[in-house]
Amino acid sequence: MKEVEGGITAPQGFKAAGVHCGIKATQPDLALIYSEVPAMSFGMFTSNKVKAAPVHYSLRKIRRHQTQAIIINSGNANACTGEKGLKDAEKMARLVAHHLGVKEDMVLVASTGRIGKPLPMSKIEAGIEQAVESLSFKGGHRAARAILTTDKITKEIAVETDIPARGKGKVVIGGMAKGAGMISPNLATMLCFITTDACITEDALEEATRSAVNKSFNQISVDGDMSTNDSLFILANGLSRNKRIKTWHKKKKIKLKDENFDRFCQALNLICESLAKLIVRDGEGATKFIEVKVKGAPFPKDARRIARAVANSMLVKTAIAGASPNWGRVMSAVGAAHAKVKPHRVDVYFDNFLVVKGGLGVDGTEEKLGEVLKQDEVKITIDLHQGKDKATFWGCDLTERYVKINKRYV
Amino acid sequence: MKEVEGGITAPQGFKAAGVHCGIKATQPDLALIYSEVPAMSFGMFTSNKVKAAPVHYSLRKIRRHQTQAIIINSGNANACTGEKGLKDAEKMARLVAHHLGVKEDMVLVASTGRIGKPLPMSKIEAGIEQAVESLSFKGGHRAARAILTTDKITKEIAVETDIPARGKGKVVIGGMAKGAGMISPNLATMLCFITTDACITEDALEEATRSAVNKSFNQISVDGDMSTNDSLFILANGLSRNKRIKTWHKKKKIKLKDENFDRFCQALNLICESLAKLIVRDGEGATKFIEVKVKGAPFPKDARRIARAVANSMLVKTAIAGASPNWGRVMSAVGAAHAKVKPHRVDVYFDNFLVVKGGLGVDGTEEKLGEVLKQDEVKITIDLHQGKDKATFWGCDLTERYVKINKRYV
Repeated sequence: MKEVEGGITAPQGFKAAGVHCGIKATQPDLALIYSEVPAMSFGMFTSNKVKAAPVHYSLRKIRRHQTQAIIINSGNANACTGEKGLKDAEKMARLVAHHLGVKEDMVLVASTGRIGKPLPMSKIEAGIEQAVESLSFKGGHRAARAILTTDKITKEIAVETDIPARGKGKVVIGGMAKGAGMISPNLATMLCFITTDACITEDALEEATRSAVNKSFNQISVDGDMSTNDSLFILANGLSRNKRIKTWHKKKKIKLKDENFDRFCQALNLICESLAKLIVRDGEGATKFIEVKVKGAPFPKDARRIARAVANSMLVKTAIAGASPNWGRVMSAVGAAHAKVKPHRVDVYFDNFLVVKGGLGVDGTEEKLGEVLKQDEVKITIDLHQGKDKATFWGCDLTERYVKINKRYV
Repeated sequence: MKEVEGGITAPQGFKAAGVHCGIKATQPDLALIYSEVPAMSFGMFTSNKVKAAPVHYSLRKIRRHQTQAIIINSGNANACTGEKGLKDAEKMARLVAHHLGVKEDMVLVASTGRIGKPLPMSKIEAGIEQAVESLSFKGGHRAARAILTTDKITKEIAVETDIPARGKGKVVIGGMAKGAGMISPNLATMLCFITTDACITEDALEEATRSAVNKSFNQISVDGDMSTNDSLFILANGLSRNKRIKTWHKKKKIKLKDENFDRFCQALNLICESLAKLIVRDGEGATKFIEVKVKGAPFPKDARRIARAVANSMLVKTAIAGASPNWGRVMSAVGAAHAKVKPHRVDVYFDNFLVVKGGLGVDGTEEKLGEVLKQDEVKITIDLHQGKDKATFWGCDLTERYVKINKRYV
């Protein structure tokens, strides 16, 4: 397994485009992903009860698991836009299908940006034509730029798996994402698009994707707010013509052991973990990446609750922003997590420095910690000494800039 | 019922003091409350699993429901301080008991401030002597100052109830609180001390207090963080010699109807609501008070969850800070609240302006909203149109100053 260039257009048969159609003032705001042949597809969507129109639309269409294109706009979420919003999402798919000469059902739609404004459809209409014209096998990076909102950096990655393709070469997976604000760990928690030329069954694709998302996007948090638009799509077009990856023997209804499935999962995990970490690193106003590891928990849910509570605590996040060795806030967040915990057994480490031993502060560490906390990556490890379960959460610090960005954003 | 001067020393027989003993550099940091006679007492404490030493101590002592004094220090939470912390809390009670000539069991202890540092006991020892010497029937305000940490204003109130005292006058209730940071709605969520000269049974005192706390301190939030030290104490010394307020006939085991109990609850609710609102208004860095009202909910818990989610949303809080009429963030928070909600039925008002009707933005209101949102009090009303249940939550905006305060605090 090794990283390769090209993002979502690294796998065979995928083209992409990113153009500026005028939703935003100057930045690219419309992206298109296209597979030369219909691809097996799977999607995961926000669990927010208030879902954007494109989420409603794509949720329905992806049930067929056959997709050939995805059209994505940034700058406008097309959320809380009622009937008109749904019609606009549908129209976007229809226009793309028309220009590409594919079936309308084969086109999915995603949007991100401001909630509650109607889409400027004439601009998008012209933009779609332009995007179809500029589709290219090297368009991955331009697409990755066009889906951003308050993100500062593009988030893309591609990996060559160890799964042999027919003929020569290997199966490849590529991905891109956008994040920045409104990031919270519930189901798919941002926009993420993954492409692969793997030949894989529907079941195997779903199983691999759910598992990768749980170990990546579902354990990150920028601000605890879950968006109306969060979606993750994966398209597998099979052009590698590898031996089909399976997990189930359909007729015998038994679970199969397929080493290529494990390889696929391994590569997909890397893709999702990398994109999830990039989202956190690029969190609105963030200056520091925080990893919270909980171990020794009596049950997995206790580990998760504590890791999440610590990563989400505004007081922990501001302390890290200020490079303040305030372990008391970590202990307070641990206690407030509605989890099984015996405070007098808890050890806390900042990087490799033991700061709390059996629930009590360790003398003389605070001075050394100043330097550790000034690094742009801070690792907090919490050992509950109550069992064997563990969990990891990734978050970022909370700075004045987060507030500034979100006061202004309209 | 009318407001009167004097805070916690407004009721008969209560003395208080607030002194500077040197835990903080210059500000008063030690408060003492004293009742001339043993008072019926009740307390509510943080549900954080990591409890400070004084919480462990007072939790145990208050089971006897007989209290004559409370000693409170600010500047140091005496939390995560192990055996030494417990001994220090015990010693504080013992010293107070000794100097006042009361039983040690009759003294409760509370602390607030930095977690994980041992108390400077020699300073506190001297401070306790000084506090006992300066006890006064007019000491309420000085005590209210001495319990503050990052609070900008003192929080105190006293109310004369409509319950006749024996002889002349009325039953009086007084209260003081501290808040500012680490405020979140779970049980008692700050330090709060309430005194009354009412003669009341243990059951009635507990029932009235639980009910008042649920309608006040349990529906406020500054930052969603629950402290290790949150405690609420109420002392009723009976010196008004009013007809004892009862809710139960002990022998017959039946619920009684006592109009003085209703009057007592009414006054206690006012005390708790006023102090809770003062805490939110004085939230760290807050510039605006936010009231979130949810109505038309199918069940009470749905109303509460939504009100809480909206009041806690960092994106809503920053939008209000920036006077940005971003109702989309309110809708997103409503949807993310894990509550029963039909988005297409939801109406949202900012003050009296309808901004969302049936889940859709109302045209032309955003311009008018600019002025509304610049006020220092913003009311968000959410009508779910799904039932009859409702809930209210009080919060504050999130500003750069909150981050600044908490980056620096060590």
